[in-house]
Amino acid sequence: MTAKFIVIEGLEGAGKSTAIALCQQFLTSQQIEFINVREPGGTPLAESLRDIVKAEHQESVASETELLLMYAARSQLVHNIIRPALAKGKWVLGDRHDLSSQAYQGGGRGIDRTTLQTLSAMVLKGLQPDLTIYLDIDPVIGLARAKGRGTLDRIEQEAVSFFERTRARYLELAESDERIKTVNANQDIAAVHRDITQVLEYFFQGLN
Amino acid sequence: MTAKFIVIEGLEGAGKSTAIALCQQFLTSQQIEFINVREPGGTPLAESLRDIVKAEHQESVASETELLLMYAARSQLVHNIIRPALAKGKWVLGDRHDLSSQAYQGGGRGIDRTTLQTLSAMVLKGLQPDLTIYLDIDPVIGLARAKGRGTLDRIEQEAVSFFERTRARYLELAESDERIKTVNANQDIAAVHRDITQVLEYFFQGLN
Ligand SMILES: Nc1ncnc2c1ncn2[C@@H]1O[C@H](COP(=O)(O)OP(=O)(O)OP(=O)(O)O)[C@@H](O)[C@H]1O
Ligand SMILES: Nc1ncnc2c1ncn2[C@@H]1O[C@H](COP(=O)(O)OP(=O)(O)OP(=O)(O)O)[C@@H](O)[C@H]1O
Ligand SMILES: [Mg+2]
Ligand SMILES: [Mg+2]
Repeated sequence: MTAKFIVIEGLEGAGKSTAIALCQQFLTSQQIEFINVREPGGTPLAESLRDIVKAEHQESVASETELLLMYAARSQLVHNIIRPALAKGKWVLGDRHDLSSQAYQGGGRGIDRTTLQTLSAMVLKGLQPDLTIYLDIDPVIGLARAKGRGTLDRIEQEAVSFFERTRARYLELAESDERIKTVNANQDIAAVHRDITQVLEYFFQGLN
Repeated sequence: MTAKFIVIEGLEGAGKSTAIALCQQFLTSQQIEFINVREPGGTPLAESLRDIVKAEHQESVASETELLLMYAARSQLVHNIIRPALAKGKWVLGDRHDLSSQAYQGGGRGIDRTTLQTLSAMVLKGLQPDLTIYLDIDPVIGLARAKGRGTLDRIEQEAVSFFERTRARYLELAESDERIKTVNANQDIAAVHRDITQVLEYFFQGLN
């Protein structure tokens, strides 16, 4: 079986890290070798871009700058980590990927779709996740969960309306793409676990 | 008179810094208020991207990553420094600008023209220099001059063929754009000075 690329997506506090722990258990139980990556980041250069993107700056950060930094980090991760892993037969489990840019920079910041498509095509050159699990959450609930973990970074400090636009774009894109599965992340952890497990089992059935 | 944007371009060691000193004298003699900027860089965020682009990394740096970082830095400089200065009536004197990306990432690295145009349009939104002085030099001569100054950075360590491709693109673009004036920078400093002064005088005549 060729190695697969699985991505977990969703707003802050949607439960991505929690879902990844569950996926790790699932993949291990299937005796699948995999690596974990997160975006933005995942290589030393990309992690330094992550720090720049999340930090608060004295100067204002233009929407276009944020977008370009996200794709610069993705470019390093795809070239140096994701493609080599898949080529060696290792699965890749990602905490965010291209869909985050479509939703946050596209929906949230209002960058136009043509620009996003050009960048996406240039950096990914056809690479796409085999399965994306989108954890859909009310941003007010997600931000409350995220706050429980500590101080909020530059993007997490955006207004709720920013996350509403981001969520709307996530939902729209999930609806139009078969490989994106939406899970209701407003539920309690047990119910979310159950739904994610169901998605994974369904995905594995399709592989046989 | 509305404020103008003047850019000095050319390969490493072409004599850009030397030319900028001359332009500064010229503008001062005309009692023009101006600011100096350099690319990549010119804001704290953009300068940290400059450091990342010039540094040597353990990981390989994809051409697309380099391109995106150049435009991310340019985006900050244009939004936060160049546009506000021009709006206040201050002239801007730039050490490199968009033409460097067209020549280095386009000619040198082989990024296609459509991608470059998309990024350029997104970041510049129609901003363009009123005058660009392109200092044309044989890369072997330029690199020898640059070496005199100290160790070479990641890009300066490229093969001569990389700079030949970059130079060819510079020459092609200069030929097709009236606002780019080519100066033969292989000459001695006195001759280069004389030619740059001539370009500046001609430019100022056109303004009256
Ligand atoms: N379904 C749930 N119900 C209630 N709390 C949850 C649920 N899922 C996760 N949490 C808790 O909410 C907090 C945020 O979850 P988690 O860190 O998994 O979110 P995340 O999407 O990874 O956030 P970030 O985007 O900041 O990385 C954690 O404290 C986690 O234990
Ligand atoms: N026409 C010239 N003939 C000989 N030497 C020159 C000439 N112009 C500049 N130099 C010398 O060459 C060196 C490089 O010049 P300069 O720093 O102006 O180039 P640069 O284009 O700014 O380089 P970089 O791209 O590295 O910033 C300096 O030592 C400078 O004094
Ligand atoms: Mg997380
Ligand atoms: Mg210089």
